[in-house]
Amino acid sequence: MIYDSIIIGAGAAGMTAALNILRNGKTALIIEKEVIGGQIASAPLIENYPAVKEISGLDFSTQLFDQITALGAEFELDIVNRIEKKDNTFIVHAEYHSYETKTIIIATGSEHKKLNIEGEDELSGKGVSYCAVCDGMFYKGKDITVVGGSDTALQYALLLSNYGRNVYLCMRRNTYSPSAEQILIDKVEKKSNVKIMFNVKPKKIIGEEKVEELLLEDTTENKELALKTDAIFVAIGEEPKTDIFNDFVERQNGYIITNENMETKTDGIYAVGDVRLKMVRQLTTAEADAAIAAYNVSKRVS
Amino acid sequence: MIYDSIIIGAGAAGMTAALNILRNGKTALIIEKEVIGGQIASAPLIENYPAVKEISGLDFSTQLFDQITALGAEFELDIVNRIEKKDNTFIVHAEYHSYETKTIIIATGSEHKKLNIEGEDELSGKGVSYCAVCDGMFYKGKDITVVGGSDTALQYALLLSNYGRNVYLCMRRNTYSPSAEQILIDKVEKKSNVKIMFNVKPKKIIGEEKVEELLLEDTTENKELALKTDAIFVAIGEEPKTDIFNDFVERQNGYIITNENMETKTDGIYAVGDVRLKMVRQLTTAEADAAIAAYNVSKRVS
Repeated sequence: MIYDSIIIGAGAAGMTAALNILRNGKTALIIEKEVIGGQIASAPLIENYPAVKEISGLDFSTQLFDQITALGAEFELDIVNRIEKKDNTFIVHAEYHSYETKTIIIATGSEHKKLNIEGEDELSGKGVSYCAVCDGMFYKGKDITVVGGSDTALQYALLLSNYGRNVYLCMRRNTYSPSAEQILIDKVEKKSNVKIMFNVKPKKIIGEEKVEELLLEDTTENKELALKTDAIFVAIGEEPKTDIFNDFVERQNGYIITNENMETKTDGIYAVGDVRLKMVRQLTTAEADAAIAAYNVSKRVS
Repeated sequence: MIYDSIIIGAGAAGMTAALNILRNGKTALIIEKEVIGGQIASAPLIENYPAVKEISGLDFSTQLFDQITALGAEFELDIVNRIEKKDNTFIVHAEYHSYETKTIIIATGSEHKKLNIEGEDELSGKGVSYCAVCDGMFYKGKDITVVGGSDTALQYALLLSNYGRNVYLCMRRNTYSPSAEQILIDKVEKKSNVKIMFNVKPKKIIGEEKVEELLLEDTTENKELALKTDAIFVAIGEEPKTDIFNDFVERQNGYIITNENMETKTDGIYAVGDVRLKMVRQLTTAEADAAIAAYNVSKRVS
C-alpha cells in the first residue's frame, strides 16, 4: 500500500495532521517511536487551550487519539531510520518495516535538554527526571528541585508543590524566562513551600543509590552551594532530533525550516509543530501548522 | 486608562488573543459590534477541533468567553469607526466611546457574502437566512434550499436535513468547492432527503410575505428553473470588512496582509484570524494567529 501521507511523530501536531488528512478522505499512517501524545502528554495541566478551561496533557492526548482512531487513523510503533526518494514516492525505512508514501509530514517535536553534568545520567530514574507528571508522586513529603525558568519549569514547580515538603526552583539567570507567563509566575510565587533561587548554576548531582544533593554555583557571589534534595526535575528546554532528515530539509539549530505552507526544501516533505523553526511553540501553533500541511497534502495527492 | 491591547472582534481569534495576553499579565479590551463568538458561533457542529470530538459553535464560543472572563477580560459592545495614531499610543474611536491603547489587534473576521439578486434583501428574515443554526428549526417539514458548495454549505445541508422535508443543495459549478472535506461530502450524499444540484445559478427570489420560490438558471442547458422552497440559506463565502483600517494596513481583496508575526505595516497594529490574508482559514489557524500576535504584543508592552 502507498499511503497519501506518512506522519512521523504522534504528538499534538502529528495527530492533528492525521485528523485533517483523514477528514479530507485521504490515507495516513502515523509512525511513533515511543509514546502517543508526545511532549504535551506530560503537561500537568493545560489552561491555555481555547474553549477548554482545564485539561491534563494526558487527557488531551487520549481524546485526540480517540478522535482520529474513530476516523480510521493507522499507527505503527516503529523507529524511523532513513528516508529514501523513489520516483514519485518516498520509502520510509524504520527499525521493523519499510513504508511507502506520496508525502511525508515530519512531526517529531523535540526532546528534553539535559544539564550535561556529572551524576545526571547515572541517577536518571533514581531521582533525576524530566517529567513531573510521570514521577512527581514518588516524592510526597520530600525535598524536590526543579531546574529551569520557563513555563514548563513553572508548571512543574506548581504541580510538585502539591507533593513536596520543599520545592526549590533553580534558575541560572536573575529572572524567569522572557517567554514565561505572568500568571504562572504569580501562582508559583504564592506557594509557600516553593523557594525561588535565581543566579544558580547546577554543577554536579551527588548520590549513591539515589539523588541526595545538588551542587550549585551561586553565580553572583561565585561560591558553591550544596542543596539537599531527593529529586531533581530538569526543565531547561527542548531540542529537536532531526539528523536523519538532513539530506531532505534545511535546518537551523536542528529545527527544520519551512515556508508558510509548511513545505521543506524537498517537494512532498512537510514539517509541523515543535520541530519547525518558529517563534511561538504552543498547542495552537502546532495544530495550525498541522492543519496547513494537511491542506497542502490533500490538494497534492487528490 | 491605556490598555496594553485593544482587540477588535470577539470571535475565536479575538478571544484567543485575549486569553494569551491576559495570561501574560497584560491588559486587554475586546470591542465587539454584534455577537460574542463571531462566525464560529453559528457553526452547527465542530468536529475538527483537536481533542474535542464534537462541539457546537455556540458551546465553543461560550466556553471560550467564560474562560477569558474568568481571567478578567473586558468587553465593550461598540462599533469601531476610526483609528488614530497618537505619539506612542492609538485612539480607537467607536460609536459610543473612544479608547486608548498601546497596541491594536484586528480580529474582525469576515461577513457573509450575499447573492446580490432580486428579492434577497426584501425577504431577508422572511425565509432568506445566512445562518442555519439560528434559523433552521423554523422550517420543520418544509422545503429548504442551501446555496453553496463549501464546508459551510455542506454543514448547513447536513443540519437542515434533520428539519426539512427536502433540502436542495445548489451549486453554481459542476462540483463541490475544492476545499470541501470529503467526509462532509460523503455524509451529505448519504442523506436521502438532500437533493444535490450542480450547475445552477440563483437568479431571483420570489415571494410575497415570505420566500416561495427560487428562480435558478440551469447553466448546462441554459434554461430557467423554478424551485419551490420555503427557505433559502446562503453559504457562498465570506468577505472581510476592513475599509476603516485602510490608512494603517496593506490589503488584498479586503484581507489584511501581515508577516508571520502577524504584524501589519503599522508598528503596533496586528491582524489575526479570518481577516488576515492566508491560505487555510480554520479554528486552529485563527487561534495560532492569535497566540503569535499575543506573544508579540506582550513582549512589546512589557
